[in-house]
Amino acid sequence: MVKNTSMRWRLPLVCLLWEVAMIVLFGVFVRFDPEADAHWKEEQHQKNLTSDIENDFYFRYPSFQDVHVMIFVGFGFLMTFLQRYGFGAVGFNFLLAAFGIQWAILMQGWFHSFENGKILIGVENLINADFCVGSVCIAFGAILGKTSPVQLLILTLFQVTLFAVNEYILISLLHVKDAGGSMTIHTFGAYFGLTVTTILYRPNLEQSKDKQGSVYHSDLFAMIGTLYLWLYWPSFNSAISNHGDAQHRAAINTYCSLASCVLTTVAFSSLLQKKGKLDMVHIQNATLAGGVAVGSGAEMMLTPYGSLIVGFLCGIVSTVGFIYFMPFLESKLHIQDTCGIHNLHAMPGLIGGIVGAVTAAAATEEVYGKEGLISAFDFTGDYKDRTPSIQGGFQAAGICVSLAMALAGGAIVGGILKVPFLGDPADENCFADDVYWEVAFGLLSISTSPEKRLVYFLKRRCPGPIPIWTQTL
Amino acid sequence: MVKNTSMRWRLPLVCLLWEVAMIVLFGVFVRFDPEADAHWKEEQHQKNLTSDIENDFYFRYPSFQDVHVMIFVGFGFLMTFLQRYGFGAVGFNFLLAAFGIQWAILMQGWFHSFENGKILIGVENLINADFCVGSVCIAFGAILGKTSPVQLLILTLFQVTLFAVNEYILISLLHVKDAGGSMTIHTFGAYFGLTVTTILYRPNLEQSKDKQGSVYHSDLFAMIGTLYLWLYWPSFNSAISNHGDAQHRAAINTYCSLASCVLTTVAFSSLLQKKGKLDMVHIQNATLAGGVAVGSGAEMMLTPYGSLIVGFLCGIVSTVGFIYFMPFLESKLHIQDTCGIHNLHAMPGLIGGIVGAVTAAAATEEVYGKEGLISAFDFTGDYKDRTPSIQGGFQAAGICVSLAMALAGGAIVGGILKVPFLGDPADENCFADDVYWEVAFGLLSISTSPEKRLVYFLKRRCPGPIPIWTQTL
Amino acid sequence: MVKNTSMRWRLPLVCLLWEVAMIVLFGVFVRFDPEADAHWKEEQHQKNLTSDIENDFYFRYPSFQDVHVMIFVGFGFLMTFLQRYGFGAVGFNFLLAAFGIQWAILMQGWFHSFENGKILIGVENLINADFCVGSVCIAFGAILGKTSPVQLLILTLFQVTLFAVNEYILISLLHVKDAGGSMTIHTFGAYFGLTVTTILYRPNLEQSKDKQGSVYHSDLFAMIGTLYLWLYWPSFNSAISNHGDAQHRAAINTYCSLASCVLTTVAFSSLLQKKGKLDMVHIQNATLAGGVAVGSGAEMMLTPYGSLIVGFLCGIVSTVGFIYFMPFLESKLHIQDTCGIHNLHAMPGLIGGIVGAVTAAAATEEVYGKEGLISAFDFTGDYKDRTPSIQGGFQAAGICVSLAMALAGGAIVGGILKVPFLGDPADENCFADDVYWEVAFGLLSISTSPEKRLVYFLKRRCPGPIPIWTQTL
Repeated sequence: MVKNTSMRWRLPLVCLLWEVAMIVLFGVFVRFDPEADAHWKEEQHQKNLTSDIENDFYFRYPSFQDVHVMIFVGFGFLMTFLQRYGFGAVGFNFLLAAFGIQWAILMQGWFHSFENGKILIGVENLINADFCVGSVCIAFGAILGKTSPVQLLILTLFQVTLFAVNEYILISLLHVKDAGGSMTIHTFGAYFGLTVTTILYRPNLEQSKDKQGSVYHSDLFAMIGTLYLWLYWPSFNSAISNHGDAQHRAAINTYCSLASCVLTTVAFSSLLQKKGKLDMVHIQNATLAGGVAVGSGAEMMLTPYGSLIVGFLCGIVSTVGFIYFMPFLESKLHIQDTCGIHNLHAMPGLIGGIVGAVTAAAATEEVYGKEGLISAFDFTGDYKDRTPSIQGGFQAAGICVSLAMALAGGAIVGGILKVPFLGDPADENCFADDVYWEVAFGLLSISTSPEKRLVYFLKRRCPGPIPIWTQTL
Repeated sequence: MVKNTSMRWRLPLVCLLWEVAMIVLFGVFVRFDPEADAHWKEEQHQKNLTSDIENDFYFRYPSFQDVHVMIFVGFGFLMTFLQRYGFGAVGFNFLLAAFGIQWAILMQGWFHSFENGKILIGVENLINADFCVGSVCIAFGAILGKTSPVQLLILTLFQVTLFAVNEYILISLLHVKDAGGSMTIHTFGAYFGLTVTTILYRPNLEQSKDKQGSVYHSDLFAMIGTLYLWLYWPSFNSAISNHGDAQHRAAINTYCSLASCVLTTVAFSSLLQKKGKLDMVHIQNATLAGGVAVGSGAEMMLTPYGSLIVGFLCGIVSTVGFIYFMPFLESKLHIQDTCGIHNLHAMPGLIGGIVGAVTAAAATEEVYGKEGLISAFDFTGDYKDRTPSIQGGFQAAGICVSLAMALAGGAIVGGILKVPFLGDPADENCFADDVYWEVAFGLLSISTSPEKRLVYFLKRRCPGPIPIWTQTL
Repeated sequence: MVKNTSMRWRLPLVCLLWEVAMIVLFGVFVRFDPEADAHWKEEQHQKNLTSDIENDFYFRYPSFQDVHVMIFVGFGFLMTFLQRYGFGAVGFNFLLAAFGIQWAILMQGWFHSFENGKILIGVENLINADFCVGSVCIAFGAILGKTSPVQLLILTLFQVTLFAVNEYILISLLHVKDAGGSMTIHTFGAYFGLTVTTILYRPNLEQSKDKQGSVYHSDLFAMIGTLYLWLYWPSFNSAISNHGDAQHRAAINTYCSLASCVLTTVAFSSLLQKKGKLDMVHIQNATLAGGVAVGSGAEMMLTPYGSLIVGFLCGIVSTVGFIYFMPFLESKLHIQDTCGIHNLHAMPGLIGGIVGAVTAAAATEEVYGKEGLISAFDFTGDYKDRTPSIQGGFQAAGICVSLAMALAGGAIVGGILKVPFLGDPADENCFADDVYWEVAFGLLSISTSPEKRLVYFLKRRCPGPIPIWTQTL
């Protein structure tokens, strides 16, 4: 039975209806934050702010732009490593993220920025929306090449919703610190995606096995994604930390962890390969695990050497994951994880949650200063009696909640995505752009296999008898 | 008759003479702004500035860098979509922009930063110079692949000059608000470029038709340009807005408009194609129309949902433009628009002008606050009696002036570019890098058409009789 | 004799041992700077800082991120121009820089941020570490394609050490101004690298000559590197300048110098080629010389037109260097300089040192203001009696010291790298990724030479007699 993968009506319908819904909901709910509103001049007088530079815009906008690049260029290009799926990687990531940030502004707004019936947005909301979508990009990595754009939009709708609920439980109810999202973004996003891909298991996927690898140039495109993720991760982990020392510290810790992670990734990539040659897959992915794993702890006094240790371990765990765990997960647990998000986000995300819990539990007034400790963990108001060790316990609870939400949510959403009329590709068409994209000259123009193109050409054009050697290919 | 496209004397002569002229003019006119001058310490005492952070550098430099990336990487790579014109796209864009920013600093300086016989420059001048050159990059899109670098430099010289005059009329005489340049950059730049390409009409351009498409990898390179334009557009529209809430608001509005635009672009790209497959041309271009169309209104109280609506419409208009208007314009009006700037800049630019006029006319003290309204529209000094509705009228006048300047200027400059000895390529050599660039192995190394390379190779190298099937190609 | 290039034990051992050493040394020595430490709240009270924005993070973090991009994306992708060495270019640059920044934080920390037995690090240390590694990336350019990753790590260890010593002599002992590193980064890095490559001279390198060129797509990848270096160079030269006008001025001067440099590069690239066609090698490299050459002078009152003049000259010197000096250096002096760093960093670096010395010597109270002069050259404390002309002399001395350190250090390190068991590639395997990387389908999948791929394919697969024409290739 041939699958109907035409998007002609389904995709436009979803896009247009949902965008109209966004407009209506934004119209009803979304307004500017005082710092972005034209009344800010008055606000300045009231708050006795002497300078325009006190506007949160100047504290966070540069980090926001870095995060923005990570979501669209970083994740988008990281996934172009597949030889024939570059359009889908960059293009669908673009689509789902563009929708996701709108829905995230609403969902997160209702939970966190809702005042007098309105969601008031400023630059921090934009960063948080990007963060939320980051978790969808992570999940996309697991199902890359195996779903239609309609399925991806549905996934985004549900995952953003669940993300916001999970985040609310962690940040507002458990009062957990997770500025770089080890738990809310990585653990949640990755286990959610892994559950979805397990539900969508395709037993005959080896039919498109030849397309599941990379070619030389696609690996270079992917390195653009890797490097921008790696470079801007310090901005990611510090973007919504408290002003001042917390942002500063989060950036330094992340920088250290990432640097260390590169060394152990290279070491194990070479060590575990028969001929000692480096594998681009590891360099592209495992080098980033260090950023994931300090997502909770970076703004705490993790210290530079603590960060180096975390990065050191994660480079190893992630690379070993690619070499040993991933084939095992696919063959035994039926988890077909295209990009290996289990190695880059799931395991390092869990480690990150634990690192955050331990670092919080170990916090002392000596290390933070009295005022610093209160400020770092926001031990004020309802939480003024919370101690570091209790905070550590709540951090640990946050990991469990995120994991539970991811597994349960992923199972439900995976089930929804199995609805037959969503236009997913047949097994033999997975990982190929020509299902959903106009591709110039058909796939024969892609510089993958010159042999195939030659044979195709010869068979199609030769009027005389075909030389014998072309028949044996 | 074979055209002489050798640049050996013409291009060096123009580059060297003009650069010497720049040095002389900078030597006579250009000095540092007080905030960039070593005397600033004294200035600080006088103005009672308590902190170095009050220097405009810290308000605008991050945005400047984003704009800078947009001009050189964004526009440059966006135009690499052509299969054999990547060097020309990135390289000529680099050349014309590097010259253009110098000339723009002078032209804009004489109009706006001229004090006591000197042009005083700071970071805002650098941004404005990049903006001005942006309009040249836009015009370059219409004539991409059909002109010599000497022609492009001449185009830049004149267009920058006219841009500065037009900008002076709008900003200084009409007191129009256009921080993101819907009128001054996009409307002016696009209609200017479209007029030039109409004057330079090539009736036999179909001789190079095979080179006018993209290939798989060139489309991925172009997506680098697209994404950087899309991501940094909030910086573009907020870069020269007033400090504080205006910059903050402009960034948020642009972010919203762009997000919405992606959804409708995808919807119509799929809807209007026979098989419902997405077209990379639309994704690369129409997704950006939302940024263009809030160029005037973004710093006003357009509101997030207003921005979503603008983006929604522009995605549709721009995609429909690519599918229906563009072939019509070429066949009926002889407008050969290589990159489709009519769809990405001209129509959205006009919409942006209108959006700005309407938003300005609709401004009230209730929405902006008394002080906010004065600050947002700079209703001070000579303009202290201007009302929002009058402002709206002037905004509308600004559109007309920009359009008139573009059409008249483009006609004149197009005529100048027809001068015969400027080294433009023959029709059959359009859209091919090997006319002006040393290309490794000649064009046969470009991964476009393996068939041609094979045939070339066989014909050149085979000593014995060529197999029959190669003769029929 | 076949060389053993397997990295299986050597590379992991070096990576793991050195990273453990980093962790131990960071554990003993590295702590947060007060501005990144949780005690900062108390510090704020003491220093009477009214706003979090006074944290150095907000003055320097955006510039840091730009510099970070330059080191990893800029240098990394600039070197991907080689047709078959993209993985090595980006990947080894990534590895050596990730190790180098850690070691640089220690080395520079001991010299400059050592207090009470601890190195206190903040964002400025991160920038300086990136700067230090920049000099290693430059040296890497000279030996690109001819060394093993183990050799590169050893090079990094020694070069970072020597860099820190040289920097200490210049900045702390000679009290030289070199914020953008014309001397410390470019002169030192380039002459160091050139000396190393001379010591490692390979007389039979022409065996891999066919791989030493570029192909169409690799040149486009390299342009990503070029543009990010060019665009962010103003951030590079201003990143560690004094707050306020000095950062502002450094950015403007660099912007001007770079713009001018593009024009003369294009002029001479066209002028000196027989057919007047532009050469991508020049556009990729010589356009950046203007940034190198204002590395010392940019933060001084070099003035915009002064910067234009410097850029003008450097574009010429650098392009002429590529066309005339480079073949001479290789044939006569046995300097095999893969990327042409002599043209991009060595000569412009020297020019930059001289420009800095002259600009310093020419400084007057009239131009800088009394306070401005003291601030610009830090004529306080031990140096309160130093005059501009004396400063000029010290600047000149700084050039000589850098040069001497580079030549002596390069000779020693070059000798160390000749140790036989470091796994360097055989002459015929230089410039090819498959020595150290898993390459999909072997090198035949790289889109370099379709002919070779065809022949390989035909020879391997054809069961019957091979057509005569394949035997003559």
